[in-house]
Amino acid sequence: MSGNTFGIVFRVTTWGESHGKALGAVIDGCPPGLELSEGDIQRDLDRRAPGRGPRSSARREIDRVEILSGIFEGRTTGTPISLVILNRDHDPSAYDELRDVFRPGHGDFTYHRKYGIRDHRGGGRASGRETAARVAAGTVAKKILAAEGIKVLAYTAELGGVAIAKFDPEAAEKGALRCPDPEAARIMEAKLDEAFRRGDTLGGVAGVIVRGCPAGLGEPVFDKMDADIAKALMSIGTVKGVEIGAGFRAAGMAGSECNDPMGPDGFLSNNAGGILAGITTGGDITIRAACKPIPSIAAAQDTIDTRGNPVKLSVRGRHDVSVFPRIIPVCEAMAAIVVADHLLRQKAVV
Amino acid sequence: MSGNTFGIVFRVTTWGESHGKALGAVIDGCPPGLELSEGDIQRDLDRRAPGRGPRSSARREIDRVEILSGIFEGRTTGTPISLVILNRDHDPSAYDELRDVFRPGHGDFTYHRKYGIRDHRGGGRASGRETAARVAAGTVAKKILAAEGIKVLAYTAELGGVAIAKFDPEAAEKGALRCPDPEAARIMEAKLDEAFRRGDTLGGVAGVIVRGCPAGLGEPVFDKMDADIAKALMSIGTVKGVEIGAGFRAAGMAGSECNDPMGPDGFLSNNAGGILAGITTGGDITIRAACKPIPSIAAAQDTIDTRGNPVKLSVRGRHDVSVFPRIIPVCEAMAAIVVADHLLRQKAVV
Amino acid sequence: MSGNTFGIVFRVTTWGESHGKALGAVIDGCPPGLELSEGDIQRDLDRRAPGRGPRSSARREIDRVEILSGIFEGRTTGTPISLVILNRDHDPSAYDELRDVFRPGHGDFTYHRKYGIRDHRGGGRASGRETAARVAAGTVAKKILAAEGIKVLAYTAELGGVAIAKFDPEAAEKGALRCPDPEAARIMEAKLDEAFRRGDTLGGVAGVIVRGCPAGLGEPVFDKMDADIAKALMSIGTVKGVEIGAGFRAAGMAGSECNDPMGPDGFLSNNAGGILAGITTGGDITIRAACKPIPSIAAAQDTIDTRGNPVKLSVRGRHDVSVFPRIIPVCEAMAAIVVADHLLRQKAVV
Amino acid sequence: MSGNTFGIVFRVTTWGESHGKALGAVIDGCPPGLELSEGDIQRDLDRRAPGRGPRSSARREIDRVEILSGIFEGRTTGTPISLVILNRDHDPSAYDELRDVFRPGHGDFTYHRKYGIRDHRGGGRASGRETAARVAAGTVAKKILAAEGIKVLAYTAELGGVAIAKFDPEAAEKGALRCPDPEAARIMEAKLDEAFRRGDTLGGVAGVIVRGCPAGLGEPVFDKMDADIAKALMSIGTVKGVEIGAGFRAAGMAGSECNDPMGPDGFLSNNAGGILAGITTGGDITIRAACKPIPSIAAAQDTIDTRGNPVKLSVRGRHDVSVFPRIIPVCEAMAAIVVADHLLRQKAVV
Repeated sequence: MSGNTFGIVFRVTTWGESHGKALGAVIDGCPPGLELSEGDIQRDLDRRAPGRGPRSSARREIDRVEILSGIFEGRTTGTPISLVILNRDHDPSAYDELRDVFRPGHGDFTYHRKYGIRDHRGGGRASGRETAARVAAGTVAKKILAAEGIKVLAYTAELGGVAIAKFDPEAAEKGALRCPDPEAARIMEAKLDEAFRRGDTLGGVAGVIVRGCPAGLGEPVFDKMDADIAKALMSIGTVKGVEIGAGFRAAGMAGSECNDPMGPDGFLSNNAGGILAGITTGGDITIRAACKPIPSIAAAQDTIDTRGNPVKLSVRGRHDVSVFPRIIPVCEAMAAIVVADHLLRQKAVV
Repeated sequence: MSGNTFGIVFRVTTWGESHGKALGAVIDGCPPGLELSEGDIQRDLDRRAPGRGPRSSARREIDRVEILSGIFEGRTTGTPISLVILNRDHDPSAYDELRDVFRPGHGDFTYHRKYGIRDHRGGGRASGRETAARVAAGTVAKKILAAEGIKVLAYTAELGGVAIAKFDPEAAEKGALRCPDPEAARIMEAKLDEAFRRGDTLGGVAGVIVRGCPAGLGEPVFDKMDADIAKALMSIGTVKGVEIGAGFRAAGMAGSECNDPMGPDGFLSNNAGGILAGITTGGDITIRAACKPIPSIAAAQDTIDTRGNPVKLSVRGRHDVSVFPRIIPVCEAMAAIVVADHLLRQKAVV
Repeated sequence: MSGNTFGIVFRVTTWGESHGKALGAVIDGCPPGLELSEGDIQRDLDRRAPGRGPRSSARREIDRVEILSGIFEGRTTGTPISLVILNRDHDPSAYDELRDVFRPGHGDFTYHRKYGIRDHRGGGRASGRETAARVAAGTVAKKILAAEGIKVLAYTAELGGVAIAKFDPEAAEKGALRCPDPEAARIMEAKLDEAFRRGDTLGGVAGVIVRGCPAGLGEPVFDKMDADIAKALMSIGTVKGVEIGAGFRAAGMAGSECNDPMGPDGFLSNNAGGILAGITTGGDITIRAACKPIPSIAAAQDTIDTRGNPVKLSVRGRHDVSVFPRIIPVCEAMAAIVVADHLLRQKAVV
Repeated sequence: MSGNTFGIVFRVTTWGESHGKALGAVIDGCPPGLELSEGDIQRDLDRRAPGRGPRSSARREIDRVEILSGIFEGRTTGTPISLVILNRDHDPSAYDELRDVFRPGHGDFTYHRKYGIRDHRGGGRASGRETAARVAAGTVAKKILAAEGIKVLAYTAELGGVAIAKFDPEAAEKGALRCPDPEAARIMEAKLDEAFRRGDTLGGVAGVIVRGCPAGLGEPVFDKMDADIAKALMSIGTVKGVEIGAGFRAAGMAGSECNDPMGPDGFLSNNAGGILAGITTGGDITIRAACKPIPSIAAAQDTIDTRGNPVKLSVRGRHDVSVFPRIIPVCEAMAAIVVADHLLRQKAVV
């Protein structure tokens, strides 16, 4: 009920604070017999690792995952898979000055109001670091999907107001920004540099495509595939909006324009984003998630302390200029977790 | 697991098909001692009732709700509240021609692929009629919220490409289109008339504001308040996108622009939409949901039958031109259910 | 969370009070394509109906079930099955004298303390009448099991201190007491007559056997098959103890005596009751449930009223002398619901 | 759905195999502000540690718990508490001879049939070692209960056919066998010695008393307090039966004998075991759990290998003669987890 678990058949529970001893995930409901190694997960964690450039967070998290259970002789056994990532560098003193102040745009104030107590060190549980556990769990989900020919691809669709104009999956996979439009990527980089110099941060839009998903996944009414995807993506701290297929554009369409006609070989367009009445059509599932700019900025901001007194706060230290591209594997992981869960759920239906 | 239940403490299970004997909801977890009558629910159902104008569905659903359990001497007892709405007019023969054909934009194809069997009559379980049960449950949720001074208001924010330019809650409550901008409403009406004459349909955007919500509601990580709102709204068949606060606009902002500063009297802006790190700030929760146009249109469309043969289909009968304004109380109900659930969840936290 | 739902994949939610308008169940997660009619359910409800003899409750509940959803052309569709049973005779005035008094052995006091409000009429939600909804749901579960060759048989194993000495399933199915030992049944009948004349009531033990269950059902650790069976049976108001296989006798055994050896054709004994480490062995699942005597007795008892004043209470009206044999189909239904749920759960495992 | 999580508000997920790298638990839903240290948990783990006598398992598990998250400055924060216990000695080779054989009375055969793959080393996930994680979680539950004046006491009620005749809680707390009757304890010790010499094992009955529990906990219908207790206790691998209050004795009683009369100062007897209609009465909750003898015995037993061939198996190595007294803190932990969960659940009710 405390909301640290996601999924029904494929269940992921994450735990851990930004500056605690460790963070991790317990994955319950993974089918037995799946090949899985620490190296598989490490590859995805490395994709989420901080960059090496001047704009990147100075904090070097060397995230090494360890699998503590659920694997026997290189294969899953059907029992819970416990993953742990130690926090190598967890010096809490760096955050002492934030003990009694609420950073704008962060969860400091709301956690304080919810629990009456909070771990102020680097955001504690609300930190983006929690998403490392999601990425690790996402690797397992993607392995389940791969066995059925389903592939999940996330990419940078927009950054600092610059939107992609073309879609080259190779470019997304290889480029530093995970952007499928190399030309747009160059402009995005320039925007990032400029924001970095200003001590400011930038938002953007992540795109996710799920390919090869069979028709018939998703449950009617409340647990629709798109409803669960919306929850999964919106549960990422930085995300403020989610759309499927034509999304908000559909609001401006006529029915004659929005409906996807069908022919003997399938749907002739995909405004539905691969989901009709909450159930997959067999076409690509297309998702977009709006990500707000990182709230830690150098400029002095008006805020209050825990006693309600006004404070001018400038968040010191080196912070990322944008959640992009680090957010990309997180979005990919969450989409993969939802689809894997529904794939297994459907087995119990028919 | 089959997805017909929503909520954790305040749990709503809906059942029933468009053209079956009845539809209804079971509400579990409503606190004891709350005054509740059939009349309370009926008022909300009437707001969802088909309009009387020339553009409205000819099908006159006289939705009369009956409370079968959970109330004693006018008050809730803490036991499940069973609500039933009989389908007065459930002539299945009108849908005989749709038995073997998949209507574009509907769930016909996906249900067929999911279950191998489907109730083709008017969409069966995928019909918008299912939302009557949500509206009924929403009344109970709103009663719980009202007791804590929380109010949920939904409205038409955009229709047929026409967006509101001002926000007058009274106008939203009273106008036929539930639009808070009377001038925009007039243009929307004209767009609806025009679409009606073309036999076409229109999409739009519903807005929801939750006022008076205390800070501290919502659970960290997966069951964030915004994540559950996104799921709740996206679980409405017509919704293709959900955003909170600045939503997709936040993607184009800089951190210095998007962060909401705080003063001793609270937040000085509300780009967060009343939610930070998934937990309410105490400010207004602001939500927007993109609704696609109704897929039943008069124009002939390309589709296939259950054997895969191409078919030209023109959906006959009188259908609504838009889900607006009938979708408004549905969005209101879903938002109310989420907030009521988290209000009760928080009681178990501290 | 309010505990009116049982099961994970095959989910049963019951609602309704003893003297309200109706009671019922919503069954979610039933596979599509299963033949199901009201007559199927009615047969099981009739087995739970009050007897016709002098010792039986004078209240003639004519329980007629109606299926409101989830069935199309005689088959389940995979959507929720809503069942309703109207309370024909719900005169609340008969219970007026109990409004302010706590009957010993009933839930009157505990409901009052839990909710601060209660429906005193005939026990409200705590009444044995709630089990009619379980029996109705059990019919659906048994249909799922029958399709896989699994059969559930419940019987009277002990009544008024008289235990069975032989096991004839035919006798259990046909005899008025559902007792598999006709001779023991005759003595039980005599005990019942004697208790009836004294205005007293009798307890007993229900037995349940599940035959044809495949090996491999049940989840390790918390959702063991026996754990879920124990919960299911103990959730029946009258049950105070549950045992599997050798049960409490196993506590007095040595390992060399209790272990069931295996041969090429299977297990050579069944002290395990068909379950090892929480997972079915493929052998018969054998269950026993201890049922306390009905607490409504004619003799004057010491109790208190809602203000705490001492009261002498003699429960008037005609009441049953024992929950036997009416409890038998209830135990059968609950066991069937658990096994059907785990049968469907296992589909999602491998 | 895979059954490794228990509880609704206070949720415990355990993970880990007998001979894997580690085992542990994630506790979600613990209220914030509770003092908690590794030492608190260690004390309970030590109570579960193998004895030092000649009859005890030679395997010396030095179970050291580490808290990885959820605690800040000595207090819980409301976020998940991750506990890990490393397996110091996990030599899998000792179990090589069991790779292809099914030990009678163990889960070897059923896991094999469920998953098609199993970790044969020491029982893997089915090992009693998994209960160390439950004990650790139980410490947290008992802290929540202690803050409300609720105490849980478990004890040896019967062992090797010897039942207690008196109840001295001090003796239970201090004695090596956790038996509240020192004289009975001496006879039990003799029975254990005798069984040890024979290479055999013994079963028994564990008792649990919950004192100071307020009235009103437990949910009607399926999640009755006794139903959840039955599930919790029966989910311990060794338990084959659970009873509440008079339990199976109630089956032989008349209503006039079984009903607990009430006076102004409360109930005058406690055949109900502190629970009426599934809800606590405010009296002691009294529970008994039948534990089967440990199945690993020295005598040669008939069994089969994974290909179905008959095998004579004598389980080598040093094994415990009985789960007593090590099972006592496990039963205590499970009862504490259930009551703590319902204590928190009730907060959301009224």
